[in-house]
Amino acid sequence: VSAAAQPSAAASPPAVVTFLSDYGLRDEFVGVCHGVIATLCPSARIIDITHGIARHDILGGALLLASALPHMPVGVHIAVVDPGVGTGRGALALELGDGRVLVGPDNGLLVPAAQAAGGISRAVEISRSPLALERVSATFHGRDLFCPVAARLAAGTPFEQAGEPFDPARLVRLAMPTASIEGSRLRADVRLLDGFGNVQLAARAADAEALGLRPGDQLELLLADGAVHGARFVRAFAEVPAGELLLHEDSAGFLALAVNGASAAERLDLRAGRQLLLRRGEPGAGLPASAGR
Amino acid sequence: VSAAAQPSAAASPPAVVTFLSDYGLRDEFVGVCHGVIATLCPSARIIDITHGIARHDILGGALLLASALPHMPVGVHIAVVDPGVGTGRGALALELGDGRVLVGPDNGLLVPAAQAAGGISRAVEISRSPLALERVSATFHGRDLFCPVAARLAAGTPFEQAGEPFDPARLVRLAMPTASIEGSRLRADVRLLDGFGNVQLAARAADAEALGLRPGDQLELLLADGAVHGARFVRAFAEVPAGELLLHEDSAGFLALAVNGASAAERLDLRAGRQLLLRRGEPGAGLPASAGR
Amino acid sequence: VSAAAQPSAAASPPAVVTFLSDYGLRDEFVGVCHGVIATLCPSARIIDITHGIARHDILGGALLLASALPHMPVGVHIAVVDPGVGTGRGALALELGDGRVLVGPDNGLLVPAAQAAGGISRAVEISRSPLALERVSATFHGRDLFCPVAARLAAGTPFEQAGEPFDPARLVRLAMPTASIEGSRLRADVRLLDGFGNVQLAARAADAEALGLRPGDQLELLLADGAVHGARFVRAFAEVPAGELLLHEDSAGFLALAVNGASAAERLDLRAGRQLLLRRGEPGAGLPASAGR
Repeated sequence: VSAAAQPSAAASPPAVVTFLSDYGLRDEFVGVCHGVIATLCPSARIIDITHGIARHDILGGALLLASALPHMPVGVHIAVVDPGVGTGRGALALELGDGRVLVGPDNGLLVPAAQAAGGISRAVEISRSPLALERVSATFHGRDLFCPVAARLAAGTPFEQAGEPFDPARLVRLAMPTASIEGSRLRADVRLLDGFGNVQLAARAADAEALGLRPGDQLELLLADGAVHGARFVRAFAEVPAGELLLHEDSAGFLALAVNGASAAERLDLRAGRQLLLRRGEPGAGLPASAGR
Repeated sequence: VSAAAQPSAAASPPAVVTFLSDYGLRDEFVGVCHGVIATLCPSARIIDITHGIARHDILGGALLLASALPHMPVGVHIAVVDPGVGTGRGALALELGDGRVLVGPDNGLLVPAAQAAGGISRAVEISRSPLALERVSATFHGRDLFCPVAARLAAGTPFEQAGEPFDPARLVRLAMPTASIEGSRLRADVRLLDGFGNVQLAARAADAEALGLRPGDQLELLLADGAVHGARFVRAFAEVPAGELLLHEDSAGFLALAVNGASAAERLDLRAGRQLLLRRGEPGAGLPASAGR
Repeated sequence: VSAAAQPSAAASPPAVVTFLSDYGLRDEFVGVCHGVIATLCPSARIIDITHGIARHDILGGALLLASALPHMPVGVHIAVVDPGVGTGRGALALELGDGRVLVGPDNGLLVPAAQAAGGISRAVEISRSPLALERVSATFHGRDLFCPVAARLAAGTPFEQAGEPFDPARLVRLAMPTASIEGSRLRADVRLLDGFGNVQLAARAADAEALGLRPGDQLELLLADGAVHGARFVRAFAEVPAGELLLHEDSAGFLALAVNGASAAERLDLRAGRQLLLRRGEPGAGLPASAGR
């Protein structure tokens, strides 16, 4: 029998397990989860998407998972932002149209990523999964439930053995940030803030086009508190002087506010969920009375 | 000769090296240690338990290593919290009853984990180990001593070649936090605080039982400064309203104080080493004069 | 055919890709880059040197990369500190005399590491590399350009296919911190600060010798603002009482100021680029009028 005729563990790429959470890196939580995965699936490559999601920020975790997932190898993808741990909230494994498997709580965290990756082909409820650790604590389902189930799926356990069939139509879903064109104005929710204070809006390049914005144009921002700001629509931060506000299409394909060399979130006192209005032109004259909430 | 009859590098799981320290992740210290390990044991899987131990907090590192180790694959386990680096303090490799090897300074850091993992079967002093780098600096023994010794042991060097035989009875040991039942009260030391402000006590579920506590019961806390607080004994954070204090059995099996959605450590102004008293019942009447130090 | 006669994927060490940046770990940037690398080079071992470089601190990143690189296995080494992303700044892959490949922006970041690792044998400009992702954003070249090029080189693509030949003499270079002996004094720039406030100077043990300093000697520091401090020249932090200032040869082979158990950077209000003067002796008498800038 030739070597080529046999399946070779060495030649096939390793199973991939990705991991996103709000655990932070100060404590041992992430390390312990890595240990559990490596114990149950010794060949797994583990990729930490991030563990810096703001504590209990389900929507922020969901949006960031959706943005990051297309850049990951196809594998089993764990996400844990889980304020309802230990209560009756459900736990899920989702098989997606593109072959990925998502594992996490049934609180909306997994849905935007699933929709962006081919939709859900099968779902199982894993709260009492036979693939979990023998004893599941009330507070650390990352260690006791989500990572063991994910590791065993990555190691080859068939998907349907992870839990009970579950109708994807019954998944908990979150309200998503939105944007809309209203005449000459764009009304947009703040979608995500990053650690540098860049403010991603729930709007895309097509919305800038709809406003008639071209690179180099000046635009006007109206915030919910009535404050008015000017900004320039550019392609790169360095196109405006240090300290000035800009709007650009960010690397995830969304319109985003930034300050060259500083934090736009601080400058504008913005956070996720806030809404603002944008239009083309110099800031100042003829403003609407309010930008909403 | 069939493939099955031969040892197969591809089929055997990779050598595991875990790493815990107080180095933090801002600097290159952890990255450099990974480089050293990967150079000397290219097949090693490296798992970072955490590098967020408070600077020079030997006891905190020791307790956390003991909690995390059971979740790690069997391997070589490096721990470095080392205020005495460059002085005459010893350096050790310990072979444990369950097959693990621990590597780190002789300052008490390794002992609780060793005791929890089958006890020490053999010990070697590695301060002048032939497995260290050629030149050992006075300040970075993680890079120059502990990681090289660990990596070479992970790569298959026999344990006894790492250093001189050492009597485990001579290991430096730390005073451990304790708890005791005193009549109707539990006196307990604070054991560990995590990054969310959860306060782990040196007491277990059996101690709660000894107080007659059942899930849902109210209890009274008395702090060393005389302050009195009420808390509820529950299984999950979400069983109390946001902002309220609770006592629960945490995921490591210890009783822990927490605030749903906030920091118990801040609320109670507690830190590791502090002592407190608990008893069943509404807070207020008939208190002892003092909770100790 | 014996197994030994065949090239074995299992036996050869995995391709190594190291990664240094100012991205931080709060956001998904580093995780996404890992995903891209693992997608394009599934067998790569990825080592994070650090992602804690101060935002846009090109010189700090360059010096730290040069210090860390000798401890890394030979591989492909990505560095991204890139305030000019999206502007016309160049992008490079450099093949070094010792077999390493460096990938990053042409802003000086790669040069000190290249010089320390055998010099540059070949360079290619990769701004329009066929190895990049199909669509390169204006702001995230780590994901779209540097990591894909590095991963494909690690996977075996020949170096010359990464871009257009580039004359190494045309590389952007940074002014380096320096030190000089002036009579009985050492004038030294601050080189790097670490997260514990240790202050590395652009001076080496030979400079201490030139001042006549021996372990245990007292020395005098003169700062640019005229402040005078005493310090002791020692081998290990623990040789001075807690809270006292010391000078020692650090683990990278540079003279460094430190405070046992605290931050020398805070104590002395020093940051990178500042200059100071040192000489042997008790602090106080006969000082020069100024330490320079």
